Amino acid sequence: MPKNNFPPSAKRLQALWVELEKQGIDGFIVPHADEFQSEYVPPSAQRLAWLTGFTGSAGLAIVHRNGSTIFVDGRYTIAVREQIDQNIFQINHISECTPEKWLSKQPAAKLGYDSWLHTPKELAKLKAACKKAGSELISCENNPIDAIWTEQPQIPLSPVIPHPLCYSGETSQTKREKIAKKLIEDKIDATIITTPDSIAWLLNIRGNDIPYAPLPLSFAILYSNATIDLFIHPKKIGQGLIEHLGKTVTIQPKNSLANKLKELGQAKKTVLLDEKQTANWIFEQIIGAKIIKGNDVCLLAKASKNPTEITGMRTAHHRDGIALTRFLYWLNKNAPNKSIDEIQAAEQLEKYRKENNNKEYQYLSFETISAAGSNAAIVHYQVNPKTNKKLEKNSIYLVDSGGQYLDGTTDVTRTIVIGKATTEQKTRFTQVLKGHIALANCRFPKGTTGTQLDILARHTLWQSGLDYQHGTGHGVGSYLSVHEGPQSISQRANNVELKTGMIISNEPGYYKEGAFGIRIENLVLVTEAQNIKGGETPMMSFETLTLAPIDLNLVEISILNQTEIAWLNDYHQKVFREIGQELEEAEREWLVGCTRMI
Amino acid sequence: MPKNNFPPSAKRLQALWVELEKQGIDGFIVPHADEFQSEYVPPSAQRLAWLTGFTGSAGLAIVHRNGSTIFVDGRYTIAVREQIDQNIFQINHISECTPEKWLSKQPAAKLGYDSWLHTPKELAKLKAACKKAGSELISCENNPIDAIWTEQPQIPLSPVIPHPLCYSGETSQTKREKIAKKLIEDKIDATIITTPDSIAWLLNIRGNDIPYAPLPLSFAILYSNATIDLFIHPKKIGQGLIEHLGKTVTIQPKNSLANKLKELGQAKKTVLLDEKQTANWIFEQIIGAKIIKGNDVCLLAKASKNPTEITGMRTAHHRDGIALTRFLYWLNKNAPNKSIDEIQAAEQLEKYRKENNNKEYQYLSFETISAAGSNAAIVHYQVNPKTNKKLEKNSIYLVDSGGQYLDGTTDVTRTIVIGKATTEQKTRFTQVLKGHIALANCRFPKGTTGTQLDILARHTLWQSGLDYQHGTGHGVGSYLSVHEGPQSISQRANNVELKTGMIISNEPGYYKEGAFGIRIENLVLVTEAQNIKGGETPMMSFETLTLAPIDLNLVEISILNQTEIAWLNDYHQKVFREIGQELEEAEREWLVGCTRMI
Repeated sequence: MPKNNFPPSAKRLQALWVELEKQGIDGFIVPHADEFQSEYVPPSAQRLAWLTGFTGSAGLAIVHRNGSTIFVDGRYTIAVREQIDQNIFQINHISECTPEKWLSKQPAAKLGYDSWLHTPKELAKLKAACKKAGSELISCENNPIDAIWTEQPQIPLSPVIPHPLCYSGETSQTKREKIAKKLIEDKIDATIITTPDSIAWLLNIRGNDIPYAPLPLSFAILYSNATIDLFIHPKKIGQGLIEHLGKTVTIQPKNSLANKLKELGQAKKTVLLDEKQTANWIFEQIIGAKIIKGNDVCLLAKASKNPTEITGMRTAHHRDGIALTRFLYWLNKNAPNKSIDEIQAAEQLEKYRKENNNKEYQYLSFETISAAGSNAAIVHYQVNPKTNKKLEKNSIYLVDSGGQYLDGTTDVTRTIVIGKATTEQKTRFTQVLKGHIALANCRFPKGTTGTQLDILARHTLWQSGLDYQHGTGHGVGSYLSVHEGPQSISQRANNVELKTGMIISNEPGYYKEGAFGIRIENLVLVTEAQNIKGGETPMMSFETLTLAPIDLNLVEISILNQTEIAWLNDYHQKVFREIGQELEEAEREWLVGCTRMI
Repeated sequence: MPKNNFPPSAKRLQALWVELEKQGIDGFIVPHADEFQSEYVPPSAQRLAWLTGFTGSAGLAIVHRNGSTIFVDGRYTIAVREQIDQNIFQINHISECTPEKWLSKQPAAKLGYDSWLHTPKELAKLKAACKKAGSELISCENNPIDAIWTEQPQIPLSPVIPHPLCYSGETSQTKREKIAKKLIEDKIDATIITTPDSIAWLLNIRGNDIPYAPLPLSFAILYSNATIDLFIHPKKIGQGLIEHLGKTVTIQPKNSLANKLKELGQAKKTVLLDEKQTANWIFEQIIGAKIIKGNDVCLLAKASKNPTEITGMRTAHHRDGIALTRFLYWLNKNAPNKSIDEIQAAEQLEKYRKENNNKEYQYLSFETISAAGSNAAIVHYQVNPKTNKKLEKNSIYLVDSGGQYLDGTTDVTRTIVIGKATTEQKTRFTQVLKGHIALANCRFPKGTTGTQLDILARHTLWQSGLDYQHGTGHGVGSYLSVHEGPQSISQRANNVELKTGMIISNEPGYYKEGAFGIRIENLVLVTEAQNIKGGETPMMSFETLTLAPIDLNLVEISILNQTEIAWLNDYHQKVFREIGQELEEAEREWLVGCTRMI
């Protein structure tokens, strides 16, 4: 969203107040989430963006008699100021003031929420905070935003289609039988699966309901006999789906979910629910059942890719690396002389991704972050015609992008200097690179979590009094969401052990507001480490999957130690070996220089 | 305990079975904890040690119809094998099999527990596991071990005395008023304080109920008007205590605790309880009250030392450093020629600690770990006449010890070579030292936890396929427990931010079973880091408190980088500057060499 061109928040808020008065409440809580508690929200459920203008992938607004506010995390500190009207919404940084803290200090009020858009865990925290303030939190049967949102888009009804075994590597039946065995062991009769990517993985299906990820928005109930009820709109049944799903999967209309849940309750079944990602609404329907709280049964199995998926990821990265390298060559050739802007650059990169592939490439895995100069300091910057900057000589350019391929999902960031970098820029780039290498190169015992490793990426920056305000690594799906859990490499406490087959990003950065931004991102695969002489404890390590040169013109070699230099040389040799032969001659010659030994 | 000389576990277990049958149960759970859920347990409550022979500071035994077992953590893997009879108790390593996992796989049984010796949190987990197995967990009103333990020692009744303001730095009234203000803010009427070190800190009192820490075993109820009920045996009221405590503290006999708790329940008061360290028994008495679960209100305040306590800690470390350095000189002079054993060495070190101080020194802060050669590979080794080894030429010796001074508590480990070290020993020592320095030297942003920093101490070892099976750092009290929370530097998830004034150990190690052991331990103080040129984020750092030379004969200089060499030289200069003048001439001359620049 452009500066000084905010969406009509004032008018919309006015309409919302009329509706809230009608419903007899003094405020309303507007989370980013949809009913799937997903980061990826279809236009029909982008209520937070519609009301406030804020388009980030996480956030929460509270409309309150005492003033309205929006809460965002460190990734969006800058972006939110560009997108929302601060006369209407006060900005709160979640690390300084949580919604709970804010709510507990407001005058008593009757606040509404939509039971579909919150997990019971979130609600419990919000309710406790309201209680402190003497406020009440009331479930609104009809979401008041939906009531006033006249142009609200239709719910997506894209076809759901099979995802073939050559990409998934394991039949749905086998996956379900493994999980069902575990359910029986734990004396659980059924589990409700509420996240579209878990359903996609479990049934080997893909959809097209939201941009950038092939998610089939739907719900499912998996029973301990490995059969499943899949709740989707009949219009969404795509080609070959019925045959693919087979007899053990029953397709149900979405509106029969409530009844099925009630049946489980009435039959006093033992039902596993993930309270971190299941809408409170579902808990409300299932009264009478014995609820076991636990993790989504697909989560860990989906996170650890099987050999077919790993091969697919490697192939997708090979393809993607060629596209990105060709783009970097094009940039190197054209940026210094011709006038290229952020939008043109993003389009050119997308063109290479498309060109390069006939069959597997589907679309981008997220909107490309194409950020020149000071725009790159906005961590989740998204270019639009008003912010669109030229790639100027002697400035640095950051491009964070990825592709969805049938055999895998990519996500890569490169930071490039057009012309000559300043000493400060080279120092910072090299400090970020040292963090990237420390993580890429590390060996760690079984049982280690991403939280424990995070500091490897930050340590050099910390020693210089610097830091970055985002996580270091997120899980990545296999032709699924580009952000997937449960593992992460982050300062936030995460007790999920990094297991063989997990894929995770390695993306430290540094951002100087108003000046420049740096991020170096590769995806890595968790593997068992090769034995080492004298080693006693079995270790894990990372295999870097991403293949594209790291700009040596931004590297201050004197700051690197021998281990770091060796890693960078090895990496560049691998990049050249794996993609050099697939480039045109001029591109290849250029790549020789880019991957030279230092 | 010596090998092949196990305590009469078989006989005791036999007696226990008679008692269990009398109580109509098929087994019993025997934790290490006493009713204060403390690591430090008086002889009268050492039920686990009495039954099994295992004297470690954490562990749990389950006596079960289907076979009895003991669970220990990585620190005690070796020690437990030396102390218990495996024909009677099967050993389980807690990282491989938890008590819960074990219980869930046993045949159905009726198992007893003592409600005083478990927190509700622990019990809930144990109960869930029993439920899986179809077992029942039953509260035993009379602990069956107490019933058969004929020579059970008396409950300690040492006098509780005031801890003067010149050491505590803040009056009890001020401490209580600060906490009471917070209780009122949170609409809490009272909180039960169940840990002796919290009570000692809050009331500025000290006791003498258990070895090595001046803890007054007692319970307290703090009310939101800052008054307090202190439950102790009348015999424990020491000199000046009544005057010191003043009118806002009411001394109550311990057996009136149940009634006071019931009163709170009947009056439907809102009561804060720490479910991680409060006996289930207390929760059982307080029925009717509105229970708020939260952290012990003293925990964080006690952890962050005030300026008086910090000065005291520095002074105590100065004194302790002189004693340890004199001991190291004595060792260097005598060990290569004379026949010195572990017990003699420990006694000599204690002698220096005593000699060195007239007023402040009280006693050791824990039983000295004096470990020669392969004994040092046993992480929590405790010498006894049967294991007592000579300090042989060309071997390494590890000494982990500390003192309780009125103004502070110390804990330090040095590893020393007698004669010449092997290349392997030097390499390992230097790898451990690199970890120690990485931690000592690091700068980190506000909000960082010890879990995030832990890897700094392990990274070098991990890269070589090595690790150590214990935490890297624990909090230390101010003339209180040598192990105190809530902060730690550990692989175990701990979300407590490291705050200014916290004191924590920095003690990486490496242990080669049957061969040698290395640990380098200093205490460090969390401080705000000095500004650095170009720094943007305010950073925290550590100030090392411990003052004693690190054995340069074990350092392989070629493995250290410039930063590490600079740290070691700076540290040694500081050691010499601060304690050199207080040594005798021969000692000082020797210290010149020990602290030479490398």
